[in-house]
Amino acid sequence: MLYVIGLGPGSKEMMSYEAVEAIEKCDVIVGYTTYVRIIKEMLTDQEVVSTGMKREIDRCEKAIEIALTGKTVGVISSGDAGIYGMAGLILELVGNHEKDLEVKVIPGVTASIGGAALLGAPIMHDFCHISLSDLLTPWEVIEKRLHAAASSDFVICLYNPRSKGRPDNLAKALSIISEYKSTETLVGIAKDVGRKKEQAIVTTINELDEELVDMTTIVIVGNKETYLAKGKMITPRGYSL
Amino acid sequence: MLYVIGLGPGSKEMMSYEAVEAIEKCDVIVGYTTYVRIIKEMLTDQEVVSTGMKREIDRCEKAIEIALTGKTVGVISSGDAGIYGMAGLILELVGNHEKDLEVKVIPGVTASIGGAALLGAPIMHDFCHISLSDLLTPWEVIEKRLHAAASSDFVICLYNPRSKGRPDNLAKALSIISEYKSTETLVGIAKDVGRKKEQAIVTTINELDEELVDMTTIVIVGNKETYLAKGKMITPRGYSL
Repeated sequence: MLYVIGLGPGSKEMMSYEAVEAIEKCDVIVGYTTYVRIIKEMLTDQEVVSTGMKREIDRCEKAIEIALTGKTVGVISSGDAGIYGMAGLILELVGNHEKDLEVKVIPGVTASIGGAALLGAPIMHDFCHISLSDLLTPWEVIEKRLHAAASSDFVICLYNPRSKGRPDNLAKALSIISEYKSTETLVGIAKDVGRKKEQAIVTTINELDEELVDMTTIVIVGNKETYLAKGKMITPRGYSL
Repeated sequence: MLYVIGLGPGSKEMMSYEAVEAIEKCDVIVGYTTYVRIIKEMLTDQEVVSTGMKREIDRCEKAIEIALTGKTVGVISSGDAGIYGMAGLILELVGNHEKDLEVKVIPGVTASIGGAALLGAPIMHDFCHISLSDLLTPWEVIEKRLHAAASSDFVICLYNPRSKGRPDNLAKALSIISEYKSTETLVGIAKDVGRKKEQAIVTTINELDEELVDMTTIVIVGNKETYLAKGKMITPRGYSL
């Protein structure tokens, strides 16, 4: 049995009961070192197999190999494992494998939802997720989606908005978005959601300080009705008040 | 103090620890009758104010009024309260109010994430949420977003896909999507996620049986790379395997 477990943004409080129960049932936990640290205090006698970043395929193959010996294995992902997480890769590898293996994906709170709750209610109307990482996706595909989403006034949640290796992708994305949305459009920045140093900042496309944005950040660009009231970023659903 | 609490898809197992803790702290729980039923067994001595559907504004005004008397109030929403839920309306009303009130939004697992986990990993790449309910949104806006999302090959999660009052919206939406996506594109249907009768069906745009779809259903239309392996609907992230 292989569980793919979404840990949520980063505190036990934001994990689901079934995620914690799945961890308790596991003989072996497989995950990126940072995520293993998050659940460390929950572990009893589970064996831990942790690896560094960018070793996703190795990590998933290892997890499948151990699960096929009959052990219960949990692969952990931050946020939700089915959103830019490990669920897809595990299911792809299991799908290709000559042997069958039962996989259960345990959903979690993804960064946009955790960040939105901290900012107020910015994703109350139609929204999309676009990852700005072009490691696995051609930049032209990302650009096409930015054009489409901005031109039809979706609220846009930018995942992987800015890293050392890709310092300019956020600026490029905001420049495309500004072809359609006013530069006065509100932008919410949520950092380290669910951790002690969590931070919510509401600014505009124009005023955004890129230095605030790194890979632990989710950036949410509002639609044309998004506004600020008593410090909260709100995208109205459309009720007449 | 007013908590806006996302209950997740519908079972306690899928709720977060902080959602359950918030319910325990409340003096009064305010919610639509069906949602109150979900958390009934968790309640101890909380007063319950429940109302029928389509009374959202009344319900939220009532909750704010009670919270302003000094009581701790929890407004409950299924899924995540910040996604087509009660968080926005509460924050709008509090924003307009002459008095201040502390509001905390507790995030939950929304239908697309819960449904995706049941189906496999269909939202592993860029996706969007579009509600097909035109009660609060002009149908032209919905159409524009369908065109944009389909033409740039987003995975598309359709909320409120089909109701008695709007039996044709799903067919209209799929017809627009088919202008851009092949009618062989995989479609995942998840029903009653987190409940005993939960059901996951993977079909294609062409073969979809609309009668399976109602308001307790989430419909997820894949992108051009979405495929089926060992019964699971998978949208690859892009790893070379």
